[in-house]
Amino acid sequence: MELPEVLLHERLLEFLKEDIGFGDITSEATATLGKRVNAQIIAKEPCVVAGLHEVKKLFEMLKAEILKSVSDGDEVPADTVVAEVVGDSRAVLMAERTALNIIVRMSGIATATRRLLNKVKKHGQTIRIAATRKTAPGLRYFDKRSVAIGGGDTHRFRLDDAVLIKDNHIVVAGGVENALRNVRSKISFTKKVEIEVKKPEEALKAAQLGVDIIMLDNMTPEKVRESMAILEKNGLRDKVIIEISGGVTEENISAYAETGPDVISLGSLTHSAKAIDMSLEIVKTD
Amino acid sequence: MELPEVLLHERLLEFLKEDIGFGDITSEATATLGKRVNAQIIAKEPCVVAGLHEVKKLFEMLKAEILKSVSDGDEVPADTVVAEVVGDSRAVLMAERTALNIIVRMSGIATATRRLLNKVKKHGQTIRIAATRKTAPGLRYFDKRSVAIGGGDTHRFRLDDAVLIKDNHIVVAGGVENALRNVRSKISFTKKVEIEVKKPEEALKAAQLGVDIIMLDNMTPEKVRESMAILEKNGLRDKVIIEISGGVTEENISAYAETGPDVISLGSLTHSAKAIDMSLEIVKTD
Amino acid sequence: MELPEVLLHERLLEFLKEDIGFGDITSEATATLGKRVNAQIIAKEPCVVAGLHEVKKLFEMLKAEILKSVSDGDEVPADTVVAEVVGDSRAVLMAERTALNIIVRMSGIATATRRLLNKVKKHGQTIRIAATRKTAPGLRYFDKRSVAIGGGDTHRFRLDDAVLIKDNHIVVAGGVENALRNVRSKISFTKKVEIEVKKPEEALKAAQLGVDIIMLDNMTPEKVRESMAILEKNGLRDKVIIEISGGVTEENISAYAETGPDVISLGSLTHSAKAIDMSLEIVKTD
Amino acid sequence: MELPEVLLHERLLEFLKEDIGFGDITSEATATLGKRVNAQIIAKEPCVVAGLHEVKKLFEMLKAEILKSVSDGDEVPADTVVAEVVGDSRAVLMAERTALNIIVRMSGIATATRRLLNKVKKHGQTIRIAATRKTAPGLRYFDKRSVAIGGGDTHRFRLDDAVLIKDNHIVVAGGVENALRNVRSKISFTKKVEIEVKKPEEALKAAQLGVDIIMLDNMTPEKVRESMAILEKNGLRDKVIIEISGGVTEENISAYAETGPDVISLGSLTHSAKAIDMSLEIVKTD
Amino acid sequence: MELPEVLLHERLLEFLKEDIGFGDITSEATATLGKRVNAQIIAKEPCVVAGLHEVKKLFEMLKAEILKSVSDGDEVPADTVVAEVVGDSRAVLMAERTALNIIVRMSGIATATRRLLNKVKKHGQTIRIAATRKTAPGLRYFDKRSVAIGGGDTHRFRLDDAVLIKDNHIVVAGGVENALRNVRSKISFTKKVEIEVKKPEEALKAAQLGVDIIMLDNMTPEKVRESMAILEKNGLRDKVIIEISGGVTEENISAYAETGPDVISLGSLTHSAKAIDMSLEIVKTD
Amino acid sequence: MELPEVLLHERLLEFLKEDIGFGDITSEATATLGKRVNAQIIAKEPCVVAGLHEVKKLFEMLKAEILKSVSDGDEVPADTVVAEVVGDSRAVLMAERTALNIIVRMSGIATATRRLLNKVKKHGQTIRIAATRKTAPGLRYFDKRSVAIGGGDTHRFRLDDAVLIKDNHIVVAGGVENALRNVRSKISFTKKVEIEVKKPEEALKAAQLGVDIIMLDNMTPEKVRESMAILEKNGLRDKVIIEISGGVTEENISAYAETGPDVISLGSLTHSAKAIDMSLEIVKTD
Repeated sequence: MELPEVLLHERLLEFLKEDIGFGDITSEATATLGKRVNAQIIAKEPCVVAGLHEVKKLFEMLKAEILKSVSDGDEVPADTVVAEVVGDSRAVLMAERTALNIIVRMSGIATATRRLLNKVKKHGQTIRIAATRKTAPGLRYFDKRSVAIGGGDTHRFRLDDAVLIKDNHIVVAGGVENALRNVRSKISFTKKVEIEVKKPEEALKAAQLGVDIIMLDNMTPEKVRESMAILEKNGLRDKVIIEISGGVTEENISAYAETGPDVISLGSLTHSAKAIDMSLEIVKTD
Repeated sequence: MELPEVLLHERLLEFLKEDIGFGDITSEATATLGKRVNAQIIAKEPCVVAGLHEVKKLFEMLKAEILKSVSDGDEVPADTVVAEVVGDSRAVLMAERTALNIIVRMSGIATATRRLLNKVKKHGQTIRIAATRKTAPGLRYFDKRSVAIGGGDTHRFRLDDAVLIKDNHIVVAGGVENALRNVRSKISFTKKVEIEVKKPEEALKAAQLGVDIIMLDNMTPEKVRESMAILEKNGLRDKVIIEISGGVTEENISAYAETGPDVISLGSLTHSAKAIDMSLEIVKTD
Repeated sequence: MELPEVLLHERLLEFLKEDIGFGDITSEATATLGKRVNAQIIAKEPCVVAGLHEVKKLFEMLKAEILKSVSDGDEVPADTVVAEVVGDSRAVLMAERTALNIIVRMSGIATATRRLLNKVKKHGQTIRIAATRKTAPGLRYFDKRSVAIGGGDTHRFRLDDAVLIKDNHIVVAGGVENALRNVRSKISFTKKVEIEVKKPEEALKAAQLGVDIIMLDNMTPEKVRESMAILEKNGLRDKVIIEISGGVTEENISAYAETGPDVISLGSLTHSAKAIDMSLEIVKTD
Repeated sequence: MELPEVLLHERLLEFLKEDIGFGDITSEATATLGKRVNAQIIAKEPCVVAGLHEVKKLFEMLKAEILKSVSDGDEVPADTVVAEVVGDSRAVLMAERTALNIIVRMSGIATATRRLLNKVKKHGQTIRIAATRKTAPGLRYFDKRSVAIGGGDTHRFRLDDAVLIKDNHIVVAGGVENALRNVRSKISFTKKVEIEVKKPEEALKAAQLGVDIIMLDNMTPEKVRESMAILEKNGLRDKVIIEISGGVTEENISAYAETGPDVISLGSLTHSAKAIDMSLEIVKTD
Repeated sequence: MELPEVLLHERLLEFLKEDIGFGDITSEATATLGKRVNAQIIAKEPCVVAGLHEVKKLFEMLKAEILKSVSDGDEVPADTVVAEVVGDSRAVLMAERTALNIIVRMSGIATATRRLLNKVKKHGQTIRIAATRKTAPGLRYFDKRSVAIGGGDTHRFRLDDAVLIKDNHIVVAGGVENALRNVRSKISFTKKVEIEVKKPEEALKAAQLGVDIIMLDNMTPEKVRESMAILEKNGLRDKVIIEISGGVTEENISAYAETGPDVISLGSLTHSAKAIDMSLEIVKTD
Repeated sequence: MELPEVLLHERLLEFLKEDIGFGDITSEATATLGKRVNAQIIAKEPCVVAGLHEVKKLFEMLKAEILKSVSDGDEVPADTVVAEVVGDSRAVLMAERTALNIIVRMSGIATATRRLLNKVKKHGQTIRIAATRKTAPGLRYFDKRSVAIGGGDTHRFRLDDAVLIKDNHIVVAGGVENALRNVRSKISFTKKVEIEVKKPEEALKAAQLGVDIIMLDNMTPEKVRESMAILEKNGLRDKVIIEISGGVTEENISAYAETGPDVISLGSLTHSAKAIDMSLEIVKTD
């Protein structure tokens, strides 16, 4: 998922506008117009870099330029120069904070995704780490993209691209069967149907009713295993995609991965992303 | 800092739009139009609640309503019902994720702010905990407001509301004196001037040059103390506001607070906010 | 698929703005401010009505009101009063053209969809009539919604909600197998994969490669039948959804429906929609 | 009427955004980044081409390019290459549908306009074919421009650029004289005044009251002729512009043209435009 | 010309946003939430009031209310209470400056228009005072509307609603005849054609070529009279509208009015509008 | 204060859009596409030029170009060519009015600011002339920037960048002390606090309460002098910035300047700006 630059432009403009207001009065008062500088964006801790595409475009919008950089998705050690910027000193100083705010958040999400992915891969090469819709308000695109750069699965982009019947839908519909009754006829054939279940027998029922994906929600690894076994026994394991969600942490993810799911999703990837420590340093002036 | 509802409307609309797309196809297929439900937003861990004002407006935008709630800024224990919502089932389900994404982030920031504030208050009732401009892209207003609700100081809103001369400005200007030379004449009398210094003697020079605020950047508590002492000795401690920034953590903040600064600021409050665990549960249907 | 009113508001505002400019100078010069009128929107030919939800909101935006109306999706004979409006004469006159432009287009699309659906239902109750992305620029939501109101399938909303590998993708990728190679690993597990094929043997290959949907593109009914037979013979017919597309018209659709596909899609539903003849007549003034 | 590119940019961006969402996931998965392709836009039926200016700009927005093309307004036979595109395969694939949706609609409108114009020109070189405000919602500019490219008259752009007193205005005002009473004093001297009449004697009255344009609404050719005769007899035919509107079709337009009007306007030009069949074919890859 | 409230909302929102930023921090710190106040908007000098419609809507957007007021277009003496406002103290204080900025500008323009109109009416009841396109950037609607409230003619709203061939067009076209040659065929029959001339003989030529309006540009009253005489003599005075423009001031306008033109237009009405002195005073608190 | 071009673009686009509508129909009908012209923007009266940066960008947006020009802030005599433009004749003609509307307003404000500044400088080199928030609605940035170019102080940009307690706040709070009570604790340490006082003793109280800036509102020069004397006597004159505001005119400003304030602010600089007389003349065509 990657927006063309002409659409990315709009989003970055919002970010710039909120920071700039009527102008960067500090830089106007301290930096001579026309003085060019070279600067480096430095990652101070090991990370998976994400956001370079965005930051590159951001600097270009201010007529500065990224001369060279590592690539989105690269794993780098501490103290790596992830990008070298050149441009008018005022432009570089004006963009500094917005650029860093983007790249430190995106890299934070990508790094967490990659770390978890590496953990689960030990238990199954094809297990996916997926994001949820628990993204920062307004940042759905950037948060999901960061997960993708980290190697994760983006899951649904929004409420219109797949059906996901959650506990509250089931309550409102009056049970799993009721909830699923109208879905097939009302929903486009182009969309998958997923349902969230809390018990092994519900997983079985859902599979029998023909859903595409079953989310085992807030189950212990034991309950997950039990669900798998019932599906297997009924010859339905291969007919559905199994997603584990709820209560998964860095600590217990291996236990979940061992149960052999297709997907493990975590809201924390995006709602509690820890930023990567990066800074922009001017290394040369005219 | 609080936007009037008519302006908040616009921002919340963006958040809704990114999640809704062409419609909530799951709720349309599972929930009967016109069925009313009661739901609760529950905080599953102790926290300072922030975002109720926003969430109240969000539900109203979809013609649902918050019947009662705790107040923004309240400290609540785990398992508190922070708000009770009533409305058409489709509206409540459609708003659920956006509402939660707002309130879990804002409460996460407010909670961290309050916790740090309580720590430093032991060392000085008037020490402020301040945010920085290290906010999530596009969320400057919401992140700063969360800090304020937590009891913190919002610091600059953007690049145009005060002068803050940072290391890169000094590099570009060619030293502290050069950087400050034009500031007074170029900057409106309505704006304060802050400068970032890395050494005690720079703090002294800055105070002698008449800045309003001195940021002691990335100093150890010892260096901070040394800076304070030099200012004190020169009769300048009361003439300036002292802000400590850089490298402050939950662990070492008390050591910094003991040095007697006016303000301690932390980027982590906003760039690495851990979301509060909350959920929305439908508790009654027609 | 239905936008909440708060989002629909934005779209309707654009439509109003383009028609109003600086004001409805004719109505200001001819209608006394404060004079209330009753008006009727009349369908002058038999049709499936679509757009009432939108038009109701539009009049409300100008403080007029729809007192009663038929329902979206209703089939009505010629000369039916589809809605009764009441409001200030200037508001009703100002909204007239925008309201009609919406409802005549949406009803035109819904009517064509229903008519084709009725034709194919004779050959199979579950065959779907689907739209394509060949909608009027900027009107994707309204065009797709009209198809849904008519009883049709909305198909993809946009480029990000399902994979559809078309002829040009296959050319660029260098063949069907190449095109499909990366899809599974790169695409979220929440998305279906469809591929367009031009020959029966390609359909077989696609089914063997595990796609979810096969689009038989621009085939004659005979070729469609041949494709079905090959799939059937290989035990793959039930594993895939078959969509017929390209070259389908009102005249030949029955021949296609007889072949037993799951879906027949037509661009003409939306790109060449014939508007329904409707007018707004003021029937009473103060 | 032609928007400068900087304004056209905004409109095309909306069209792109609605189709792209978070990205063209199919092309990302099937097309190698950096691979360049050549493509052709081919008209599969004879038509008057319109929309090349827009499509050229659209491809440029995605960094692709139109190498050569016919010109807006050109009449071309079936199977004409109307434009040759070159660019990154992902850009070309991403823009394909939006570009085609624009050009097939615009060409459809231009083609219908030209065809009718050619019909009426046999009866009078100066008779104009005009559009109405019955355009697709949000597409007023593009629909009117298509009519202009086809050789037609754009008529009013919106409610503020000329006065057109229609039947409902007359009802609200209480008659033609009342309706016209305030118009002259309230309306800027820069605007023309048109009135819609349903009977020959009303046409006379309107001309006597000094309107600039008379719309003979829903009259038979005989009634039109009668209206002309009365005006002629009273020496007023040359003082007013006569526009025939309502009930005009491809079949009866010649009969209307024979009556010698100045203008014949048709809503169907824009509200029921049949798209021209065009496709984009990749003809060469790197 | 009057925008419906739903469109006015958008414009006023922009004005509020630019003044409010992240909130009215002064009022938040000084006014108790929930305290209601009564306030008056007072005109401190005699004027024609304009902008009440806008200001009423603005206060409503912040949930305050205008209880009573004079009417747009009223002439009031110094020290008139033009509107009484009631609402939450924070809302009233927050809106104060934006509301005043609107009403003082609009009233300033309306007052100047009325004053000039009264002057010219002594010389001819039907002479119009007209605005030009010399409005403040972004304020075309508000400036033109103010002129209309003052009793003036709005002239063209923008470049697309009438043809006005100015000196630079004539230079580019290579003379008046060339400039007019294509106009008739290229321009919709719904639009008037005006041309700017600098000499009496050019006025004659323009009239002979059939323009609707002739602008006598920067002529002395004598030259205007001469132009009128030539037209009269050739029986063309009644065929065209005569607009005097350029160099007209409060001082010399009577001399121009005496020559018997149809319209006198002045850029100064809008580009150099002197604001009316008004203030908002809180007269009662809870 | 200077917006980067990428943000300025957005604002200028609004200005263009309001003037262009669907296109410059006059230029399309009179100017041959592709014909290049040279034009001059000429100041017809002595002035301080402001707005060149904006006008340069505006022409570039239409693919025309400013070849050479004086600089923003330059004082020029009557009949100076302030800028030379070259470009396609249609682009230059289309931009003409918008460009002039910007530069004549901005130069008008800059010129008035400079003139007043020169007056007060005779009485004290460091006295500042400041703008207020009394700017034209929507033009806060451009009006403030014009003041800055003229040599003035921009004062507050909006309600969130400094505290200014005005008479109405004091009324609502119940006195100066009440108004100031919460300010220090509620307001960020980065913001200055200003208060408006009407009597010398209030000035003293405000200074004793530690405000940063005191606005002497609507005082006579005598009362100002009295206020200064009380502050001086209490050793507080150097602790506060003194701003005179209200009732200052070109005539009496010297009398105020003589009292030795730090700042004199005038709403008239921006709310009643008289435009500079400038025109754009085409001087050469292809």
